[in-house]
Amino acid sequence: MNTATLLLLTRPATTSAPTGDAGFVEAEADAPHVNVMDLGVTRGDGFFETISVVDGHPQALEPHLKRLGHSAELMDMPAPDTDVWRRAVLAGIDAHQREHGVQREIFAKLIMTRGVEGTGIATGWVYLDTGEDFTASRLGIRVVSLDRGYRHDVAETSPWLLQGAKTLSYAANRAALREAARRGADDVIFVSSDGYALEGPTSNVIIRNGDRVRTPQTDQGILAGTTQAAVFEFFEARGIETSYEHIPARELAEADALWLVSSVRQASPITNLDGKDFHVDAALAAELNTYLLSRTH
Amino acid sequence: MNTATLLLLTRPATTSAPTGDAGFVEAEADAPHVNVMDLGVTRGDGFFETISVVDGHPQALEPHLKRLGHSAELMDMPAPDTDVWRRAVLAGIDAHQREHGVQREIFAKLIMTRGVEGTGIATGWVYLDTGEDFTASRLGIRVVSLDRGYRHDVAETSPWLLQGAKTLSYAANRAALREAARRGADDVIFVSSDGYALEGPTSNVIIRNGDRVRTPQTDQGILAGTTQAAVFEFFEARGIETSYEHIPARELAEADALWLVSSVRQASPITNLDGKDFHVDAALAAELNTYLLSRTH
Repeated sequence: MNTATLLLLTRPATTSAPTGDAGFVEAEADAPHVNVMDLGVTRGDGFFETISVVDGHPQALEPHLKRLGHSAELMDMPAPDTDVWRRAVLAGIDAHQREHGVQREIFAKLIMTRGVEGTGIATGWVYLDTGEDFTASRLGIRVVSLDRGYRHDVAETSPWLLQGAKTLSYAANRAALREAARRGADDVIFVSSDGYALEGPTSNVIIRNGDRVRTPQTDQGILAGTTQAAVFEFFEARGIETSYEHIPARELAEADALWLVSSVRQASPITNLDGKDFHVDAALAAELNTYLLSRTH
Repeated sequence: MNTATLLLLTRPATTSAPTGDAGFVEAEADAPHVNVMDLGVTRGDGFFETISVVDGHPQALEPHLKRLGHSAELMDMPAPDTDVWRRAVLAGIDAHQREHGVQREIFAKLIMTRGVEGTGIATGWVYLDTGEDFTASRLGIRVVSLDRGYRHDVAETSPWLLQGAKTLSYAANRAALREAARRGADDVIFVSSDGYALEGPTSNVIIRNGDRVRTPQTDQGILAGTTQAAVFEFFEARGIETSYEHIPARELAEADALWLVSSVRQASPITNLDGKDFHVDAALAAELNTYLLSRTH
């Protein structure tokens, strides 16, 4: 049974030609809609966002829309029409709820590509579906650190490498997850070639030492996490100091606690990193995930 | 007017389920055929080859098919069914010729993806069309060198970065070409973070010093070029010594001549690298391209 909802954007970019519709149209999610010469598929040339929708509320919608624009800028693509995308996400949630009722957790995936080669016309869509069950990963995950290949400062020295853009060119991220599975782990923390802890393939890293919580600074070509920002709010409300830093990977082993956090999975406490066990405060993990899932914006 | 021919593969992989057809079916090239949740578009998770077809002859077909298999292996994807792909390319050329007659130069793009997320069923197609006119680039191109971000040995230390696989995750290659255009150049030579000359975003580098011709060694995470191999044959037949080496980027400036070579453009002599002019032997460039275009296999 197909449970997905699909909206095709007729005006994804501020440069899109006028249309007589709302800027998007509902379409059959199972039918093919992408041209074989769309640069999104031939070159991974586009960007995306994945938004968690809990009890009908899209979480961190505005930060996600802002990040869409940031990716477009890094990729020299036309600016997404934020108003159209916002309305498409909300209409998609409505359509999904009409069909399936209000579900506890679904996700909305927003994709914009450079369009069919030679046309210069961007394509875009919003796809909504029930996500996986993340109950297990919210209790604990095993992680390995893997070389990201790039220096920590490469986004500044070599912007054409598109570090910090959420591009569709994610094959290496997927390969890293397969490497983790081969090593008996669930996920990955990337380390720069010069030894700094960076991020996971689809997550940010949170590091706690005593009453101090840190995450790697985003000038290292890593994505500014929408969920990471909410995790910082959670800790700050408990009087814990938070900061963005350049964090040598060797300091990971000295942490009191580590998490990977992302939009759909929320917070996953790390039980083991590169073979070293970490104590997980189960009550804190539950409290943190409850907080993250309770966000209504 | 659409001039393209499209064949959708019904059995792209050796693991594909049996079908009653030849393993491929002709389809309308302009119609959408890719699902919005195909990992080829959502994650750039697949690989490709581009083959030049000159006067109806697909060039270096077997090396291209072999490289498809190599990419599949590096990406832990099912092996492409070489026999189906070969027949699809030949059938595509026939179909294109029936429609448009025998053309001097067309290209065939072969794409195989990991398929729609969750299905585990690879998708694939062969797309054929008239290429751009490369007359100008075969006379000379301006090139800039750009940091590739990775060390030269990263394919060996960190195989999950998929260096050496011809993946659909090509967004950074496209961004590098935009950076070249901003600098008034036509193309790029990537340099490793530790200073070795690597390859272009879609080409190999050929370096001549006197009667010696070299190209960067493929253990540096670069593609073994099918056209580069033919260029070596051309020079060897003229008594010139050829070799694969680790070549420090600073040696580029000391070359007598430089080319970028690739399947569809064939050989482009470099007239200027990073602002330094290079003499182009126009007669040699013409002879080399005539040789490359005369290949019937």
